[in-house]
Amino acid sequence: MVSADDRDGLLRTFSAFSEIGAKNGGLHRLTGTPADGAARSLLTSSFRERGYTVARDAVGNLFGLVFPPGERPTILLGSHLDSQPDGGRFDGQTGVVIALWAARVLEPKIRSGELPFNLGVVNWTNEEGARFQPSVLGSSVFTGRIPVQAALGATDSRGTTLGESLAGIDALGTDEVPLPSAYLEVHVEQGGVLEREGVDIGVVEGAWGALKLDVQVIGLQTHTGPTPMAERVDALYATALLVTAVRQMGLDQPGGRLHTTVGSLRITPDSPNCTPSEVRSKVELRSDDPTILTASRTELEAVLEEIGRVTGASLEVSAESLRETTRMWPQGPEILERAATGCQLSSRRMKTVAGHDALVMNTAVPSVLFFLPSVGGQTHNCREMTQEKDLLNGLSVMVKAVETLGETYASSPEGDKNPAS
Amino acid sequence: MVSADDRDGLLRTFSAFSEIGAKNGGLHRLTGTPADGAARSLLTSSFRERGYTVARDAVGNLFGLVFPPGERPTILLGSHLDSQPDGGRFDGQTGVVIALWAARVLEPKIRSGELPFNLGVVNWTNEEGARFQPSVLGSSVFTGRIPVQAALGATDSRGTTLGESLAGIDALGTDEVPLPSAYLEVHVEQGGVLEREGVDIGVVEGAWGALKLDVQVIGLQTHTGPTPMAERVDALYATALLVTAVRQMGLDQPGGRLHTTVGSLRITPDSPNCTPSEVRSKVELRSDDPTILTASRTELEAVLEEIGRVTGASLEVSAESLRETTRMWPQGPEILERAATGCQLSSRRMKTVAGHDALVMNTAVPSVLFFLPSVGGQTHNCREMTQEKDLLNGLSVMVKAVETLGETYASSPEGDKNPAS
Repeated sequence: MVSADDRDGLLRTFSAFSEIGAKNGGLHRLTGTPADGAARSLLTSSFRERGYTVARDAVGNLFGLVFPPGERPTILLGSHLDSQPDGGRFDGQTGVVIALWAARVLEPKIRSGELPFNLGVVNWTNEEGARFQPSVLGSSVFTGRIPVQAALGATDSRGTTLGESLAGIDALGTDEVPLPSAYLEVHVEQGGVLEREGVDIGVVEGAWGALKLDVQVIGLQTHTGPTPMAERVDALYATALLVTAVRQMGLDQPGGRLHTTVGSLRITPDSPNCTPSEVRSKVELRSDDPTILTASRTELEAVLEEIGRVTGASLEVSAESLRETTRMWPQGPEILERAATGCQLSSRRMKTVAGHDALVMNTAVPSVLFFLPSVGGQTHNCREMTQEKDLLNGLSVMVKAVETLGETYASSPEGDKNPAS
Repeated sequence: MVSADDRDGLLRTFSAFSEIGAKNGGLHRLTGTPADGAARSLLTSSFRERGYTVARDAVGNLFGLVFPPGERPTILLGSHLDSQPDGGRFDGQTGVVIALWAARVLEPKIRSGELPFNLGVVNWTNEEGARFQPSVLGSSVFTGRIPVQAALGATDSRGTTLGESLAGIDALGTDEVPLPSAYLEVHVEQGGVLEREGVDIGVVEGAWGALKLDVQVIGLQTHTGPTPMAERVDALYATALLVTAVRQMGLDQPGGRLHTTVGSLRITPDSPNCTPSEVRSKVELRSDDPTILTASRTELEAVLEEIGRVTGASLEVSAESLRETTRMWPQGPEILERAATGCQLSSRRMKTVAGHDALVMNTAVPSVLFFLPSVGGQTHNCREMTQEKDLLNGLSVMVKAVETLGETYASSPEGDKNPAS
């Protein structure tokens, strides 16, 4: 099925994309930057080279379809080309490049009609949520979960909107691409389970929930010199207590079932000679158990109250969004297991802790997500690594999964096509 | 001496300057910004209006002199027009506006030769050290303590240099202004002692020392989702422990003789979905006792080591600068006390915790510094306030002090003109 030429081609294409925004062996390719624009251009060229119909929607999601949309039901494969700041080469890019080559391998059977559907490849805008929040933004707009104008109005830390940044790299379009019949995505695990257990393929059957909160801490701005220590209401000190308490909540949860982080702060005025008047923190609580998430949300409220009491600062949650724990389309894991077995690869079922576009797509259409091993579980940094053999396994399983999905479709009634969750 | 018209004029000029960069009743007028440029323009116009010689040096210090420099020994009065982010109206601006009006009041006696010296007014560049570090930069270049090229190369958080920002507001010049014979500055206290004790004038006889340190914390960047809590080396968590420990050092010191702060952080990558890989902190330790400063520096080293042990992060002091505890020119306080008494105002001697250009000038020429009461000790915020009567007292004492200094000069041998420290 997958020839030696296809395998070489996949690795070559992966290298070509890796050069765009390369930094310290990793990638620094934030949404809406010139590097993002260059990666999109390379993908567009790859689509054009194969004669695909290229479509760009109002939030910059970039599609390449073997046949023009609307002619047949479409199976969509994809992931994202944006990266974290100082991120890795494999997060997202792996899924786009494998989707591109899976389409190439499957193209003859699509064009001939042997596989009775259209095939498309997509790069979703701003999956990472690093420069612009929220994450998985492009797929959220595509599935109608976020209005396009709200998405385009998201601002980075310097006040530039997503819309301005995408216009600046000519990424916006006016095409209206219909929902596909199914969506498949391969991603690197970003954890160490597959490597540790020596398993080739991670079959994702569900996802942890994630509660993302903005916490605002208000103190009193004053001079770091004359003002006596006892009279200070230092918003950064109160935030330091918050960072420490949030971490402890995760550590205290038995079984490692709660991951807690403060990853980003906005400090005002952020001057060496002023005690900060305001700090805005990005707090994350993640768990596979909704009751743990609810309990930790309640605990956070108590933490804020206690820090306010001790420091005199005022602390409150100014915004929050919940991604609920989810179960993927139930037929997906079976299809993936058959595909892996067909490729003589081992697999295990698992849950994803990280969010992915496939989770968003799963709310609208049957969606399938599988993982490839990450060396040492390293991710969101320049040491992120997935072995070449695993990239090639990813291509084989993606091709087989699309074929299997096609057979399933051909033989199943319409009602089975809806997602379970 | 000071007429009712002069008093009205002082308050009008103060209001006019306060409108430039006004924000929430305070000032937001960072070095090298258009607002800074506009304040400099107003000062230049005020100089020209009186027929003063205007001079700008290579770091943008802006002088107005009654006679051209070089003709007679000069007594220089001044302070700074830059502010903290979201700062107050009185910090620095008070000293420049009073200097301007004191020169105006004294001008006839200077031009007639009754006072046998020249008089100048100066606005020092970047006293605050908010946008660019270090603080008191303009006076440090003027006195030869910092090379001009190093100063112009200082960068803000976006990589813009001081030189670029000053060129952008046309603030740079090529004039070489010689050291004056003496320097006088009035500043708001920025503390609550004068108000609490009901005293009009704070006679500054010395300054607390300040140790300013950059602490670099290196952790491991990873995904806030999949990475187990126990495997994380979170640079922001380690920094939170640092912020807490630094504050505790200040609180633990008996007698309130150590002020400790972390006012500013640079977080990398500062993404909600990544544990931070690096945080750079601006740490300040201030004390009136050099042995306390030395001991707290040693304690900080132990704190960094302990945090490294607990978190796995690497912590080190990457840069530090010490402003030693200093004693002002010993004759200054006597001159100020005579001036205050002559104006029928009460005074008390005190030390300054904050740094001022007068401390820098004091290393090169006899320098005199006095304080006016700050309401509630509020400073470096928009609630900063000094009463009109105190601004007017400042003008009266400044005028009287210059006259007294002139008499002292006329009657003293050359050797007495050198500063004590």
